[in-house]
Amino acid sequence: MPSSSPPRFDTITFLSDYGTADEFVGVVHSVIRSIAPEVAVVDLTHQVAPHDVRAASLLLARSAQYLCPGVVLAVVDPGVGTDRRAVAVEVGDGASILVGPDNGLLAPAVAMVGGATRAVVLDRIEHHLPSPGATFDGRDVFAPVAAALAQGVDLDDVGSPVDPASLQPAMVPLSREEDGNLVAQVLWIDRFGNAQLNVGAEEVEPLGERVRLRFGTTTRSAEVVRTYADVGSGQVGLVIDSYGLLAVAMDRRSAASELGLAEDDPVTIEGLDGDDEDQTAVTSAVSISDRRPEPQP
Amino acid sequence: MPSSSPPRFDTITFLSDYGTADEFVGVVHSVIRSIAPEVAVVDLTHQVAPHDVRAASLLLARSAQYLCPGVVLAVVDPGVGTDRRAVAVEVGDGASILVGPDNGLLAPAVAMVGGATRAVVLDRIEHHLPSPGATFDGRDVFAPVAAALAQGVDLDDVGSPVDPASLQPAMVPLSREEDGNLVAQVLWIDRFGNAQLNVGAEEVEPLGERVRLRFGTTTRSAEVVRTYADVGSGQVGLVIDSYGLLAVAMDRRSAASELGLAEDDPVTIEGLDGDDEDQTAVTSAVSISDRRPEPQP
Amino acid sequence: MPSSSPPRFDTITFLSDYGTADEFVGVVHSVIRSIAPEVAVVDLTHQVAPHDVRAASLLLARSAQYLCPGVVLAVVDPGVGTDRRAVAVEVGDGASILVGPDNGLLAPAVAMVGGATRAVVLDRIEHHLPSPGATFDGRDVFAPVAAALAQGVDLDDVGSPVDPASLQPAMVPLSREEDGNLVAQVLWIDRFGNAQLNVGAEEVEPLGERVRLRFGTTTRSAEVVRTYADVGSGQVGLVIDSYGLLAVAMDRRSAASELGLAEDDPVTIEGLDGDDEDQTAVTSAVSISDRRPEPQP
Repeated sequence: MPSSSPPRFDTITFLSDYGTADEFVGVVHSVIRSIAPEVAVVDLTHQVAPHDVRAASLLLARSAQYLCPGVVLAVVDPGVGTDRRAVAVEVGDGASILVGPDNGLLAPAVAMVGGATRAVVLDRIEHHLPSPGATFDGRDVFAPVAAALAQGVDLDDVGSPVDPASLQPAMVPLSREEDGNLVAQVLWIDRFGNAQLNVGAEEVEPLGERVRLRFGTTTRSAEVVRTYADVGSGQVGLVIDSYGLLAVAMDRRSAASELGLAEDDPVTIEGLDGDDEDQTAVTSAVSISDRRPEPQP
Repeated sequence: MPSSSPPRFDTITFLSDYGTADEFVGVVHSVIRSIAPEVAVVDLTHQVAPHDVRAASLLLARSAQYLCPGVVLAVVDPGVGTDRRAVAVEVGDGASILVGPDNGLLAPAVAMVGGATRAVVLDRIEHHLPSPGATFDGRDVFAPVAAALAQGVDLDDVGSPVDPASLQPAMVPLSREEDGNLVAQVLWIDRFGNAQLNVGAEEVEPLGERVRLRFGTTTRSAEVVRTYADVGSGQVGLVIDSYGLLAVAMDRRSAASELGLAEDDPVTIEGLDGDDEDQTAVTSAVSISDRRPEPQP
Repeated sequence: MPSSSPPRFDTITFLSDYGTADEFVGVVHSVIRSIAPEVAVVDLTHQVAPHDVRAASLLLARSAQYLCPGVVLAVVDPGVGTDRRAVAVEVGDGASILVGPDNGLLAPAVAMVGGATRAVVLDRIEHHLPSPGATFDGRDVFAPVAAALAQGVDLDDVGSPVDPASLQPAMVPLSREEDGNLVAQVLWIDRFGNAQLNVGAEEVEPLGERVRLRFGTTTRSAEVVRTYADVGSGQVGLVIDSYGLLAVAMDRRSAASELGLAEDDPVTIEGLDGDDEDQTAVTSAVSISDRRPEPQP
């Protein structure tokens, strides 16, 4: 029976690579609701590509500052059932708790909100569901623990303390300078085909408003602008996106599809040195394609 | 801090073209919940094709009469960040409020429920979130305003009044008569491949129960029926759908895929003039294809 | 107006083949909320393949033991509008009620939780919504009845009693022995490409930890293991899944795509009789493909 006192947290934010075609997400909701009936579950997304820990960790970090205080349940867990650790990580001296596998998934978000203040390994199996198999820890371990924590169970009651410094670190690629240019990487292709780079708007300011982009065998000039509609028709823009980072974008078209950009691709940003008049000259043929090109060795 | 008085509306209905693979929808839910924790968010859909204002406006109009009173948050917004207006539109003298861009998205639904009684432009930035970029007004403008309105903030406190007559009008195509036939258009292809036409069941009654459909280079006879199962195997039916409109349909098969019908395609409906015996003669070869044919010039 | 007394059930679990691109799911949520505003709706999934009653019935049966007590609303209904019966089925002497078409969809879940204790045909139209068409019983019949039942309306008030034994039975394929081997069938391909068989872990124990799998023209050896990570790189495993059944799986890859396995495909499991040394010899070329092969006649 759920406790009759109000829960400690009224929100569990839930992120996974479960997809929405199978019953995984619904069953996790149901398990949470049976333990913590007054707690609302907010789905961040469940369409992370299967096993893509890195993409999920970036998505969670982007979202962190907008999430309601409470429990974050994050499950992208290719090592499920192995000896990878299942953990709960407290941040902000108890403002929120993140629950998931210790595989780097939680790290960027934890760093973003000031670092872990406590952490435990989820070894108190009285808070888990009994299970005929070891392949669905989202249902059997993470969800019931998240629900218990939201209900008010103390962190120490769901697991044994571990040094937060022992948690898997984040692996977020940094941009770097090379020969006076900026070598960036595509962090994220969103639904609209915008390709977010690991470059803040302020980093390209010294290069001016027009820059040259190089990736694969393509070279394109691009203007730094604030809205998609500011990108000229058929042109490429570097739009300051809603996280303050630069995204390679086109107006009402998918820049990723049209330019053949994929997540992780390197993109070099160069100043145009006032040779604006050469703009068309430096623009090579664009490969218009819906398919991502094969990665170059 | 949220107010401790009960909210004015307990439901926000949310529609967008954000998709569910990125964190957009979850972050909007979280922003709403942090402002209006007792308000439930009902997702209408987030899989409108990117930037397809027309499809979203029709979807919202179809849904309007079934929605809980409250706030409707609708965001399909290719002009985000430009000078297109962000608006809140009151209907039914305050029965509900629709929030979104003024680009025609809200208009058919507003008309469906009796027209706007008041409207404001969302220029009170104290109700917006501060943002590093101008590309995610769903998170930074529309969601916090929708939450504030649900909480009980007055319409006049979120923006400056504008004449409802100045709002972008709906653009819903009407069917027309031509040479005694009915020239219709496909409004919507649903998941099951049914192709809804802009024709009410009563409009084809004078033509009788069997009609001839012409679209592209195809001619097919069709019977007007009430259920998909009433359509003979391999035959085409005009099923009276759940909105009282006619949909080109096949039994347990996608009529859109099999017949090559797409949204916006024109379809001519002709009476069979009692020449039922010629039915097979007027049925041309059907192009069986999963791909939409190129539009005919 | 909704009643002011607390609802009988606080949860409706909702499963359908409506997809999430159209407004169907959102409208059903809204209809429920207008009748039963305090009842939460948990979405199990809405991405069952259109009209796939069998897949939905298996999904519901897998989920049954994890669902919150309450009303289950399940709609995969190719015969909508015909004389197929719409039913509500009580289980556990009123612990839960399942609502949906009587086409076999509910049967495996009902059996899983101990069988029906009462059933009614939904013929009390005062609990239905008036509708211009007969094609959306989810909105017009099943949702309002589910909401009424959750609110506390008695089963007898929504329909006329029918003998539970008259309900459409489940059609779950059983595995069988043939020439000392086990002939199984693929019940389910999940998002990760694991192919669940209708075989419990205990059934293959007599065959030992290494077995031979035959399907289509392919023969592969496989080890019975407890985690995906226990399957060697490029190897095929029989993983004991979270339901206690065996799933053909590969580590971080889609076994279904790589091996060309589809739902319903037969798979023969043979003991290796200690001929472990021939392991490579019995492994034929694998057809690496993202497309399901054509079914063999």
